[in-house]
Amino acid sequence: MGKAESPARWIAAELNGSALTLQVIGLQGEVLGEASERHVVSSASLEAALLRLAESWLGTATVPVLLAGAPGQWWEQELRAVPCTPLPASGLARLTASDPRLAIYPVPGLRQARPVDLMQGDETRIAGALALWPQFDGVICLPGAETRWAHVSAGEVVSFQTSISGALMGWVTGDPAYRGSFARHAEGDGFEIAVSETLSRPERVAARLYSLHAEAVLGAPSAAAGARLKGYILGMELAGARPYWLGQEVVLIGDAALCGDYARALALQGVQTRVLEAKACSLAGLSTLVPQILR
Amino acid sequence: MGKAESPARWIAAELNGSALTLQVIGLQGEVLGEASERHVVSSASLEAALLRLAESWLGTATVPVLLAGAPGQWWEQELRAVPCTPLPASGLARLTASDPRLAIYPVPGLRQARPVDLMQGDETRIAGALALWPQFDGVICLPGAETRWAHVSAGEVVSFQTSISGALMGWVTGDPAYRGSFARHAEGDGFEIAVSETLSRPERVAARLYSLHAEAVLGAPSAAAGARLKGYILGMELAGARPYWLGQEVVLIGDAALCGDYARALALQGVQTRVLEAKACSLAGLSTLVPQILR
Repeated sequence: MGKAESPARWIAAELNGSALTLQVIGLQGEVLGEASERHVVSSASLEAALLRLAESWLGTATVPVLLAGAPGQWWEQELRAVPCTPLPASGLARLTASDPRLAIYPVPGLRQARPVDLMQGDETRIAGALALWPQFDGVICLPGAETRWAHVSAGEVVSFQTSISGALMGWVTGDPAYRGSFARHAEGDGFEIAVSETLSRPERVAARLYSLHAEAVLGAPSAAAGARLKGYILGMELAGARPYWLGQEVVLIGDAALCGDYARALALQGVQTRVLEAKACSLAGLSTLVPQILR
Repeated sequence: MGKAESPARWIAAELNGSALTLQVIGLQGEVLGEASERHVVSSASLEAALLRLAESWLGTATVPVLLAGAPGQWWEQELRAVPCTPLPASGLARLTASDPRLAIYPVPGLRQARPVDLMQGDETRIAGALALWPQFDGVICLPGAETRWAHVSAGEVVSFQTSISGALMGWVTGDPAYRGSFARHAEGDGFEIAVSETLSRPERVAARLYSLHAEAVLGAPSAAAGARLKGYILGMELAGARPYWLGQEVVLIGDAALCGDYARALALQGVQTRVLEAKACSLAGLSTLVPQILR
């Protein structure tokens, strides 16, 4: 009954690292439901997980799935070379899925020749930002375990840069040797000073991180250790991405708290920012592809 | 029988992270044996591990143990503030060990007020280098998961700097998202160029690491990815420690392969190096304390 009354029209899926998330979209474009699963690490486990998560919304008809963020290598899918639009205007290929109720269309990521770089997933959020704001020309920053900076102009991604500074945050706070030294969510003073220190002397970041740890071991008050840790790592990120944000207005897309940190750090450099909601951008971006797969 | 013929005179012990190593020293100063154990993470587990590892060399007499590298906090032991000699001239305190066959003397580490830093273990190797080379005046670098640079003058540690760049190497090559991209022991070309690139633009290291990963994902030949990874991280280390090595001759103490990498990178900057063997330095350093505990 429920199924007959609210059939899925299409499914927006994204693999982020090994985490798969689904938004099931109804006939009126409404979100019928969401689901997610971790530890998806191969094309076979991905297809099985998609079916498992979508099953309660499936009837007898075939439902198309737009799948972002999966490694193109799993299906020998070519990445698209920048400069280009974030998403392809045509040519999406359907996977030969094992179950006839799903028609899976992987969304190709982007590649850059020099410096060598790649993007698998963030292109949908950039497309979403452009769908929400068609005249946008400037810089989009997508913070996360990998942070991406993209120059967008005339509807195309012109160039981009990815760094692992978000992953570094996770490694430092996850290592048994150091994690006790940082109150992860501390919001005390020190963030701004730490950003400035690393922006002006980025080469000292590895020693500053140890010094923070030493303060904790020596019992010095370090209520703001977490804030300073964030500041040091974000300062290094900003130092490395200076050609992207200098003299620009920056659109941030990602986790609200993380985007807030970036906004504060960029404001210190006189850079204005706007924050867009990541999931809304993903859905808006994938929605632009629907006409290619549904007639 | 064996015990009676070769009794232990003293034991040199060191905790490095959570790994405990022992060298059992005989009446003539000869090394009777070695033993090691992992996962030593508290004062209680340390005392139990010492007894377990030493047991086959123990008779009825009490054997003194010089223990380096254990967190002073475990016994509320004060660290010594630089500038000072690497090891104390007197005042070693005996732990109240649970077993009367061992007399455990923890060796205090060093602390620095500004920038805040600490050293727990490397001070014995510095003392050993000075014992082997009493007139030494200059810079000692001790590479490892934590790399320490120390200014040594007139027999004292004047200042030092610790960084986590060795730990960063471990995190990058151990993370499931990246480890496939780096042939850890690759010795191809690219090391020297990577060192130079990061020395001149240290703020770009987080993006360069991702770019290396992207090359691997995109199937570009990356036989030297491991060598370049090492070069990028070592370049950042050298950039942050420039005040220590610039215009100096540097003594390296540590793992032979790692010291070889540092020597190559420093040679590119016109810096001469000499390598001393870490275990020999530890033993030589702890040996200078033996007159304080054995009469």
